[in-house]
Amino acid sequence: MTFPAPLTGVVPPVCTPLTPDREVDVPSLLRLVDFLVEAGVHGLFLLGSTSEAAFLTDGQRRRVVEAVAGHVGGQLPVLAGAIDMTTPRVLEHVSAVAAAGARAVVVTAPFYARTHPSEIVHHYRRIAAASPVPVIAYDIPVAVHTKLPADLVLGLAGDGVLAGIKDSSGDLAAFREIVTGARAHPGFSVLTGSELIADSALALGADGAVPGLANVDPHGYVRLYRQCRAGDWEGARTEQERLCALFGIVGVGAPARMGGSSAALGAFKAALHLRGVIDCPVTAEPQVPLSGEEVERVGKFLAAAGLLGVGTHRR
Amino acid sequence: MTFPAPLTGVVPPVCTPLTPDREVDVPSLLRLVDFLVEAGVHGLFLLGSTSEAAFLTDGQRRRVVEAVAGHVGGQLPVLAGAIDMTTPRVLEHVSAVAAAGARAVVVTAPFYARTHPSEIVHHYRRIAAASPVPVIAYDIPVAVHTKLPADLVLGLAGDGVLAGIKDSSGDLAAFREIVTGARAHPGFSVLTGSELIADSALALGADGAVPGLANVDPHGYVRLYRQCRAGDWEGARTEQERLCALFGIVGVGAPARMGGSSAALGAFKAALHLRGVIDCPVTAEPQVPLSGEEVERVGKFLAAAGLLGVGTHRR
Amino acid sequence: MTFPAPLTGVVPPVCTPLTPDREVDVPSLLRLVDFLVEAGVHGLFLLGSTSEAAFLTDGQRRRVVEAVAGHVGGQLPVLAGAIDMTTPRVLEHVSAVAAAGARAVVVTAPFYARTHPSEIVHHYRRIAAASPVPVIAYDIPVAVHTKLPADLVLGLAGDGVLAGIKDSSGDLAAFREIVTGARAHPGFSVLTGSELIADSALALGADGAVPGLANVDPHGYVRLYRQCRAGDWEGARTEQERLCALFGIVGVGAPARMGGSSAALGAFKAALHLRGVIDCPVTAEPQVPLSGEEVERVGKFLAAAGLLGVGTHRR
Amino acid sequence: MTFPAPLTGVVPPVCTPLTPDREVDVPSLLRLVDFLVEAGVHGLFLLGSTSEAAFLTDGQRRRVVEAVAGHVGGQLPVLAGAIDMTTPRVLEHVSAVAAAGARAVVVTAPFYARTHPSEIVHHYRRIAAASPVPVIAYDIPVAVHTKLPADLVLGLAGDGVLAGIKDSSGDLAAFREIVTGARAHPGFSVLTGSELIADSALALGADGAVPGLANVDPHGYVRLYRQCRAGDWEGARTEQERLCALFGIVGVGAPARMGGSSAALGAFKAALHLRGVIDCPVTAEPQVPLSGEEVERVGKFLAAAGLLGVGTHRR
Repeated sequence: MTFPAPLTGVVPPVCTPLTPDREVDVPSLLRLVDFLVEAGVHGLFLLGSTSEAAFLTDGQRRRVVEAVAGHVGGQLPVLAGAIDMTTPRVLEHVSAVAAAGARAVVVTAPFYARTHPSEIVHHYRRIAAASPVPVIAYDIPVAVHTKLPADLVLGLAGDGVLAGIKDSSGDLAAFREIVTGARAHPGFSVLTGSELIADSALALGADGAVPGLANVDPHGYVRLYRQCRAGDWEGARTEQERLCALFGIVGVGAPARMGGSSAALGAFKAALHLRGVIDCPVTAEPQVPLSGEEVERVGKFLAAAGLLGVGTHRR
Repeated sequence: MTFPAPLTGVVPPVCTPLTPDREVDVPSLLRLVDFLVEAGVHGLFLLGSTSEAAFLTDGQRRRVVEAVAGHVGGQLPVLAGAIDMTTPRVLEHVSAVAAAGARAVVVTAPFYARTHPSEIVHHYRRIAAASPVPVIAYDIPVAVHTKLPADLVLGLAGDGVLAGIKDSSGDLAAFREIVTGARAHPGFSVLTGSELIADSALALGADGAVPGLANVDPHGYVRLYRQCRAGDWEGARTEQERLCALFGIVGVGAPARMGGSSAALGAFKAALHLRGVIDCPVTAEPQVPLSGEEVERVGKFLAAAGLLGVGTHRR
Repeated sequence: MTFPAPLTGVVPPVCTPLTPDREVDVPSLLRLVDFLVEAGVHGLFLLGSTSEAAFLTDGQRRRVVEAVAGHVGGQLPVLAGAIDMTTPRVLEHVSAVAAAGARAVVVTAPFYARTHPSEIVHHYRRIAAASPVPVIAYDIPVAVHTKLPADLVLGLAGDGVLAGIKDSSGDLAAFREIVTGARAHPGFSVLTGSELIADSALALGADGAVPGLANVDPHGYVRLYRQCRAGDWEGARTEQERLCALFGIVGVGAPARMGGSSAALGAFKAALHLRGVIDCPVTAEPQVPLSGEEVERVGKFLAAAGLLGVGTHRR
Repeated sequence: MTFPAPLTGVVPPVCTPLTPDREVDVPSLLRLVDFLVEAGVHGLFLLGSTSEAAFLTDGQRRRVVEAVAGHVGGQLPVLAGAIDMTTPRVLEHVSAVAAAGARAVVVTAPFYARTHPSEIVHHYRRIAAASPVPVIAYDIPVAVHTKLPADLVLGLAGDGVLAGIKDSSGDLAAFREIVTGARAHPGFSVLTGSELIADSALALGADGAVPGLANVDPHGYVRLYRQCRAGDWEGARTEQERLCALFGIVGVGAPARMGGSSAALGAFKAALHLRGVIDCPVTAEPQVPLSGEEVERVGKFLAAAGLLGVGTHRR
């Protein structure tokens, strides 16, 4: 099975369930994968930011990819992040995740080191030259502190270096520039990472969406995607607004006590635990757990979105 | 030999010489170490930003520490960076560099993930609890995009979690707050990472300096340190100004063509190559090399600083 | 005529034509206003960022509002910016522009001084209490270096302090939070300042758009608005993409030679000059003018968008 | 009396006392000026950030300069800020403050508008060409969001455009580059705005200091300056550390309730009120006042610094 060009549809950045002592909880991970696949998602993105890739050791990363790739076989495309600071370190992750079964790798600009756009270009060229699988750029300025310029991305698309982009910048105008520019490069995948304006991104031409919240409500995002593809913009807007309300869970964790990762990933995992998908909602260190009262509030969001109660998910 | 408390003097963040195919050039590395030790430096900091730690693979990192720790034995303290995004990944580096012979580890706040100060505290507590060697905080906002607050550092100093700090923030007022606050915690090491105001930092009470430029001119920084300790502020200022002029080498690389890492590390390595200390000035990818004309300008800076010519370094 | 609640439609932030010696060119200004009104715009926003409000003296600001308000009478709503650093200074501008005929004022968060959200709230409360006309918040982080939080805006909407918001943040997800939240406050105007995703903003429920590029092509934005209101999303997208291509004019000015204001405002004025609407394309100091070659490139963009040639605008 | 070239010594950025209804309290202002002059300061800087210039209306700004310039006559140099967004607006303030008696003007880079270094250069050239008095650059990135590059400042010094710089960037390494570069331009004044590292700045060659805290303890800064000039670095460090401890007053205001301006300026004014220098500690809107309990804590800092009690200031 070759990698789709372009990749379309809903491709959740899959959470990484952990055991109470913070090892990868493979049974929960596979249950989550089944939950997503049964909901109709079109691909799986492992080792992204939502997957806590930044917190996983190399061994844990490998275990995640091996487990999921082995489990889903060729059913649907499996992408994996190769998140690290610079070219030589990323190259090692690319080899590892490809060997473990990833069918495409997702790579950010260098971070920690201060880089120039020409160095970002060189970074992607070197990685694409060495990678056995297609390379997708990951634009996530909140983590990397660099925004990938549209012309840089389109240049690398034109040269066949990049197979696509996952845009988590929140800058829809810049995203549009890539979407329209990419029409000259058929097969190039333009994916939005936004939970909140996935409908807008699809309306202006995105190929698909990679929303973290799709872990919690994959059925909602699959519905949204189908409505957009069918041109049912009114229905899509209603569905998107329901999902936006549900996204309120990421604001439950007190900002006086925790950072954005803890709040967002803690809420996603709490919701997956409440829905019965994963066994333990713990997040990796140094993240702070939600309090019991905060978890209750996550539950109320789920209830309001119609995602709790007898038979909503598990039989 | 126990680790000095506090660590004092000049502790260069040692450059990592590479071969033309970008493997660690151990003979050049040991020659550089000898060059520094013979100049009278008081410790060695491996795997810092100046060492291109962000660009080195895990294997390369281990090789650097093993080679240097084995070479210098207990002659002088060897510190090593454990630079990675979050607690679990840093813990693996801590184990690795300690096993390879580092006598203290240098650790930044988490990066890539969005963290809260309370999570930074937890990060350092977990690392110190697991580390077989003292933990020194590394405050480098230009890389990590977080500034370690003085009260956080002093709190961890008081609790015995941190053994010291290397401050590369450039914010001397905040540094002073740590210096004065640390008087309540004897043995805590307060080190400046600044090349340009090392005299100021020492004057207000810093224990030592970790200047990248000390790779190029260790004799200058050792002289500067001795002048400061002797209260010869006039002499120290003159020496510091000579070193500031020499630091102009980091501005030689064209900003239209390269980022700050390429320009600074490229210049340090070009200078070490011109001085005959290392065999090859290449930097790790995706950094851009200095042009021939730029290297010539580095040479002029060296000449102006009295560091080139027959017998200036190599016999 | 009362101020519309909500204000809907296309409300261009009107450029301020200057004479060669940089005084307000009132005849050109009124010609521009006529050009916009004849194209069907629904309101006029004077003294915004696109109007070079930051560059105009108090006397020039007053002249602009008096001239335009006198010229259009009650034909359509005239808003004016009251752009200054803090509450007392803004209050003076509010009095001045209201006295000069503005029917609503547009006010940013404080800038230059470091403020807290509670101070921003107090700022708007004080201004609304003193203003004889409705107050519209202006969210423009690129200028003010603060993003107005959605809950702050909605709180002030609920209290009747704010009559609307002009969002130039580029953050469509945050904008959506205001759009949906504002449904609880009928009459509150939610306006996007984006040139490039006006269709997206309208699709998710914005009341109107305040695009700087509407100076150059008001007919295009009026068409776009009508298509959106009619639910012709396919047509809207095509029109929006034509306008996005035209927006390429703001990238004509060389970034090595000028800042973002010079490039964008210089291009808008060059285009208005080429279209025969204003007499002189000069911008206020210290902005740098476009070169002759750059103006030619603006002309090519106009031609490509079908906006140049015999009879395209002036009879 | 010509303006000193260079200006040396302690030049406090004079607070602007307000009445309870937030008009300029001229009697308190003059009492503050007398307090400073009697303490031996070498100049007065009106309408700086510490003076709440950003909060004062044009009328209030004029009143401040007229009152103080009239009061001190030619006794000592009076500088005034001309703080506004862009060249045309700054030019009006320059005329106004010079007409009101200021003997030099202090001007930031443009803000609010996005500018290019070449535009900053043009800005200063235009202002210097029009100003009847010397122009001093004001580098305050926390307010202006631009750092003045050293080579830009030195270039304008060499051309006689700038007569000096007040550096409030906190970046001592960059400051040093200006200090050493300015030796080629005799008469150019290099002044630090730092309260906390004034000794360091003077040690490396600054001509003087403009510390906001000198409103509260002018005697301390005058002592510090004299110690530095006499080469008594040990005494200077002790004095500086006492002043650093006193500066803790700016941390008294709760960050959960107020921004940095409110906390710092509120503390300075509370201290001046407690010391009996000004009648009312109120700050301009939208700043938040310190609570009674916070004012008490300011008092404790004063007491610890030996600045309260019978006869410490007022007879």
